[in-house]
Amino acid sequence: MPHRTVFFVSDGTGITAETFGNSILAQFAAKPRHVRRPFIDTPDKAHQVVREINHAAEIEGRRPIVFVTLVNVEILAILKLSKGLVLDMFNTFIEPLEAEFGITSNHRVGRFSDISKSQEYTDRIEAINFSLAHDDGQSSKNLAAADVILVGVSRSGKTPTSLYLAMQHGIKAANYPLIPEDFERGRIPSSLAPFKAKCFGLTIDADRLAHIRHERRPGSKYASIENCRYEVKEAEQMMLREGIGWLSSTHKSIEEIATTILRDLRPDRLMY
Amino acid sequence: MPHRTVFFVSDGTGITAETFGNSILAQFAAKPRHVRRPFIDTPDKAHQVVREINHAAEIEGRRPIVFVTLVNVEILAILKLSKGLVLDMFNTFIEPLEAEFGITSNHRVGRFSDISKSQEYTDRIEAINFSLAHDDGQSSKNLAAADVILVGVSRSGKTPTSLYLAMQHGIKAANYPLIPEDFERGRIPSSLAPFKAKCFGLTIDADRLAHIRHERRPGSKYASIENCRYEVKEAEQMMLREGIGWLSSTHKSIEEIATTILRDLRPDRLMY
Repeated sequence: MPHRTVFFVSDGTGITAETFGNSILAQFAAKPRHVRRPFIDTPDKAHQVVREINHAAEIEGRRPIVFVTLVNVEILAILKLSKGLVLDMFNTFIEPLEAEFGITSNHRVGRFSDISKSQEYTDRIEAINFSLAHDDGQSSKNLAAADVILVGVSRSGKTPTSLYLAMQHGIKAANYPLIPEDFERGRIPSSLAPFKAKCFGLTIDADRLAHIRHERRPGSKYASIENCRYEVKEAEQMMLREGIGWLSSTHKSIEEIATTILRDLRPDRLMY
Repeated sequence: MPHRTVFFVSDGTGITAETFGNSILAQFAAKPRHVRRPFIDTPDKAHQVVREINHAAEIEGRRPIVFVTLVNVEILAILKLSKGLVLDMFNTFIEPLEAEFGITSNHRVGRFSDISKSQEYTDRIEAINFSLAHDDGQSSKNLAAADVILVGVSRSGKTPTSLYLAMQHGIKAANYPLIPEDFERGRIPSSLAPFKAKCFGLTIDADRLAHIRHERRPGSKYASIENCRYEVKEAEQMMLREGIGWLSSTHKSIEEIATTILRDLRPDRLMY
């Protein structure tokens, strides 16, 4: 499939269409071109997208794949006139659900609309502010309010994971580096001691860590493989001693790390 | 639907199942209980989830809804034995795509697996670091490397939007506050002047802004409605004068703001 375009068309942000479409496309050994067309909420805009789809069909000589999440049936009908293979992600599942619930759907656009005033949304914004203020051990004030405290050596993935937990799940995630001074003392930072039950560790292969640190501080002792091996070994021994669970971030994405932390430490956040 | 549970079951993180399932459920006036069950990748774990589903069915007296993204057909078959209404999000669309592409799918688990070494993933992590280092005008070093520079009054939504753009799209998003000193001088900060073409403004209703600021600094001049009205008016006039496009964050989620910025400023990031 060298020349095939996939369109993600939505009357909202198109994030659902693209997230879902990508997970389907990941099942195929193919790298199609991606085009996201958000906020397609008028017939005019729909006709414009149809022209784009038909143009791609013509120059590529293949039907574009068109993932749509369109609530408005008039807009959907216009898209279906295109020369693409239209995969209607909404109605496919809405019909069996209407039957099951015994109610009709309300054809409301977008999971994100009007969300900006909901408590859930306010909590996410507050969690982002908390995680930023408690990044990299910047503050030990208010750690009692943290949902999770990530610990690990510098560059083990704590910061992106904290921000992801805050942004996607409204989790107040502080993070604390484990540094050589902690290893010499043989204890976790004293400000964390009362909160061990909500600490979670990230570790990382020493080779991978050295690679990441070399990009930041080439040729430094900090980045040397010997030092990375030392820090990783000491950090793992400390977490073991302190009874802090951990996982390795080496082969995991932020999404996988965050989901594992929730499952192990805050299973309530996977049920609500 | 006071007592009905929706399960999101996946052999990966379950993020796709939940994102997609939520956008479908948003079409119904219903608040079911959510249960996400990630990493269900063995028959044992699948049987455990089936027991949970059947238990919910029994105590609620209704079929639970079960959104599944399961690549492994053996696991899927086990889930289908449950007493839930199983909505199979993968195979529903994989079959027409196999026909269209003329190839079979590879049944690979998860869009996030093995992602941690990809260039796209590395770019996201780098963008997060960039956005953090350039949050709230902290640094004007390296602004030439920014993809986007958000400007606006304090608490207009710049920080969460910057972090979202970085995390989800690998966009290096700096952000700069517009402050009373800028309004007195009548010009945007001089470090931004060479980069006006990649500036994007956020504005916000003065009432909403006063509410948000009051939560941070109750009773302050900073939070007063008069001051908020003044700052918002000055900021909008400045952006107009400087030719910087903007939108109002008042009724928009981070996701909607980010998608609009990409559409208007970096349409290339919606096509790749």
